[in-house]
Amino acid sequence: MRMETINVTIWNEYLHETRNPRVQAIYPEGIHRAIAKGLEPLGDFAIRTATLAEPEHGLSAAVLEQTDVLLWWGHVAHDQVSEKVVEQVQLQVLSGMGLIVLHSGHYAKIFKRLMGTFCSLKWREAGERERLWNLRPDHPILQGIPEYIELREEEMYGERFDIPEPDELLMISWFQGGEVFRSACTWTRGHGRIFYFRPGHETYPTYYNPHVLRILANACGWARRRVRLDVTQAPHSQPLEPLPREAQ
Amino acid sequence: MRMETINVTIWNEYLHETRNPRVQAIYPEGIHRAIAKGLEPLGDFAIRTATLAEPEHGLSAAVLEQTDVLLWWGHVAHDQVSEKVVEQVQLQVLSGMGLIVLHSGHYAKIFKRLMGTFCSLKWREAGERERLWNLRPDHPILQGIPEYIELREEEMYGERFDIPEPDELLMISWFQGGEVFRSACTWTRGHGRIFYFRPGHETYPTYYNPHVLRILANACGWARRRVRLDVTQAPHSQPLEPLPREAQ
Amino acid sequence: MRMETINVTIWNEYLHETRNPRVQAIYPEGIHRAIAKGLEPLGDFAIRTATLAEPEHGLSAAVLEQTDVLLWWGHVAHDQVSEKVVEQVQLQVLSGMGLIVLHSGHYAKIFKRLMGTFCSLKWREAGERERLWNLRPDHPILQGIPEYIELREEEMYGERFDIPEPDELLMISWFQGGEVFRSACTWTRGHGRIFYFRPGHETYPTYYNPHVLRILANACGWARRRVRLDVTQAPHSQPLEPLPREAQ
Amino acid sequence: MRMETINVTIWNEYLHETRNPRVQAIYPEGIHRAIAKGLEPLGDFAIRTATLAEPEHGLSAAVLEQTDVLLWWGHVAHDQVSEKVVEQVQLQVLSGMGLIVLHSGHYAKIFKRLMGTFCSLKWREAGERERLWNLRPDHPILQGIPEYIELREEEMYGERFDIPEPDELLMISWFQGGEVFRSACTWTRGHGRIFYFRPGHETYPTYYNPHVLRILANACGWARRRVRLDVTQAPHSQPLEPLPREAQ
Repeated sequence: MRMETINVTIWNEYLHETRNPRVQAIYPEGIHRAIAKGLEPLGDFAIRTATLAEPEHGLSAAVLEQTDVLLWWGHVAHDQVSEKVVEQVQLQVLSGMGLIVLHSGHYAKIFKRLMGTFCSLKWREAGERERLWNLRPDHPILQGIPEYIELREEEMYGERFDIPEPDELLMISWFQGGEVFRSACTWTRGHGRIFYFRPGHETYPTYYNPHVLRILANACGWARRRVRLDVTQAPHSQPLEPLPREAQ
Repeated sequence: MRMETINVTIWNEYLHETRNPRVQAIYPEGIHRAIAKGLEPLGDFAIRTATLAEPEHGLSAAVLEQTDVLLWWGHVAHDQVSEKVVEQVQLQVLSGMGLIVLHSGHYAKIFKRLMGTFCSLKWREAGERERLWNLRPDHPILQGIPEYIELREEEMYGERFDIPEPDELLMISWFQGGEVFRSACTWTRGHGRIFYFRPGHETYPTYYNPHVLRILANACGWARRRVRLDVTQAPHSQPLEPLPREAQ
Repeated sequence: MRMETINVTIWNEYLHETRNPRVQAIYPEGIHRAIAKGLEPLGDFAIRTATLAEPEHGLSAAVLEQTDVLLWWGHVAHDQVSEKVVEQVQLQVLSGMGLIVLHSGHYAKIFKRLMGTFCSLKWREAGERERLWNLRPDHPILQGIPEYIELREEEMYGERFDIPEPDELLMISWFQGGEVFRSACTWTRGHGRIFYFRPGHETYPTYYNPHVLRILANACGWARRRVRLDVTQAPHSQPLEPLPREAQ
Repeated sequence: MRMETINVTIWNEYLHETRNPRVQAIYPEGIHRAIAKGLEPLGDFAIRTATLAEPEHGLSAAVLEQTDVLLWWGHVAHDQVSEKVVEQVQLQVLSGMGLIVLHSGHYAKIFKRLMGTFCSLKWREAGERERLWNLRPDHPILQGIPEYIELREEEMYGERFDIPEPDELLMISWFQGGEVFRSACTWTRGHGRIFYFRPGHETYPTYYNPHVLRILANACGWARRRVRLDVTQAPHSQPLEPLPREAQ
């Protein structure tokens, strides 16, 4: 494959960082800018950010068409995301745009719409230890990642996670409090690739962790397709083989 | 498993049969009643039917709660199915109700919503021969089915079919005009089982074919779960293991 | 499906129980008889046992042909299992016999042969707590099983488990020492169904646990196919459609 | 990913070409050299060939260790391939070497060993038309491939193909005589990627077809992993979390 710039758009709800001093202290410029700064040195990325408050949430048709891979972080305002934007994003993903859904994005309208399920899970915010086990060291998304990643403090997400069986299960999380979780999952929908990655609660510095950033950078390369294909048509087709008269 | 009555609801748009004499001649009482009559002798089924014109399309919450497996046939009026009913059906499927989607139901709101894709395909109505090849003679849905089924005349559906990779691909169709199609596919979504079965164009007597009826009867047994489980909650969980003070 | 007796054969290496007093104290008649006694009341089973020391390890062609589901427990003597018996078992599984592989059976010749991989894993014997999380309460194998099973003391098995991606991942284990494991996995190979279930170290009373027994009983029902089909032939086929002269 | 030379080894039984004038006329230097010449201009490949008659069939440990992707064509002499070489190839695939199995290689010892099944199928040699339908235009292996490929004359392979459900089903073949076949399938085993591609009967000039060559070139890029990892060890692990005394 040719080495090429990957156009990445990082979408963030961007509310906790403006309201909660604890979050502000960790992500003064917002989670989106922290991820952008972290990704920059890890690949040939052209990064733009977008937030809920912008017109069309910063995700106009023009922006989406120029986006190879969209990252999505949301939590408390999923219901404020307009149906029109969600439909646009779904259209682009099914046409070939990559989508990386982060942490509480499991409840984002766009993720639930692409999965077809409710995407519910168990949770606990107790700043406990998380250990993500690497099931697929062969996988492009996990290149450079050791046999496990340890996060000293994270929110707990526990099974059962209400998702369709992933195409690939890449990592499973162990939590100090006794739960497990499918934390790194891939799916293909239409012509688009989707990656869900669990860690990233706003009250912990997860998006400064070099392994987490490496996984997100790898995932951008994995999720980027070189084509956008139309999946909206159901074309009438002429026969490719001669059909007997009675079948005309 | 214990032998138990399976509560089957057959939903049919029921428009072609009232408008098109050619269809009326084949299915005078409607596709739904033809399927009901065909299924009856093949298992311990309590069958009810429902149509678009009925209040709530015949699919009230009460009906859906008493339904183990819902069959769905629709074609020209997908957009007339109310969002509220579609949401109710999705909720029930994710909770454990079985869903069998027939032929042009590939474009039904409920199927697209559960798949997360557009479910587009190629098509041609030329009354050509279809041969469905049996890939999984071991599978409960294909018990009693030979190595292939031949339908003398059917509508053609051709790949690419825009669906998520099926959990199980049971049959592939060969068409006289030169196309192929994944004609019998299963998925699990939430706690519910979904089966898509391709044949069944309204202008051909497909639903009188004994193999087709056997597959639908088997699919009802396969899709029926004995539980309905709530997938709408994301419960807060207490730790199952002692957490060190700093993690409280 | 008709209610029918399931012919179950439980194979056990049966060495630890004759050599190690600690194991003998837990399984005085052997792991195979403990499982047999536990399964008996849970379904309509006709149970036979077989061990390494018997002629053909108790697995003659006749026995295998009469077996619907074979359970396999082995540990220290995998290399003493004859290639001929392994070939016979593989032939029967691919023809439709169910196979349930238990605990250290992950390294059994028959399991590695059916998986095509080395089936390696991490391990530790420290009598730590294991908690198996239920990912698929809808699944026949997990009927009657709560959201998790806790085993006070078990051997640890940790990822990466070198297996092909399971068709279905049913349970994930959490271990007190910090690891996770895919503990309940299903595959279909040929016409046969295969289930791997992790717990069952010889020094712990795991096979007396009612949840463990319920899972094994359910798995026997799930793995049993009603057909045995020949997969050894590659038949020459006559064309089903007329071929133009130049293609004869 | 960085652009890097891919070390490709093309293995060919190389018997038909030396015995059958009809085959010799099509592949005077052998199928392996025809594929080598065809691949050369399509990527940065360092290509070597190996044949049955060479010592260790040309697949010494040294050759395999330097091979990123191995292509395999065999037909009449599968049983002459030494077990030792098959074991070496399996070890390398599970460690991360890519494997591309061609046409009648479905019955090669190495393919059956990696699949765990018998890999049987239906067949007919009648020089009929084959049309391979593209199910995954998004997939790296199918970049540059149209919605279908037509081969004027090929051997027929028909379902049921006795393989484990592929990780990805990329193409389905339509045959003039009335059969279908899963013609382009991928699997991951251990750390290695495996691709099976159906066409390529020795009596037809299939390996001169530009689409076929493009698919093989793409598949080399897809199958090449940058790592070789040991899958032969089952390491004892120290606990990562403190275990209570009773659990030591």
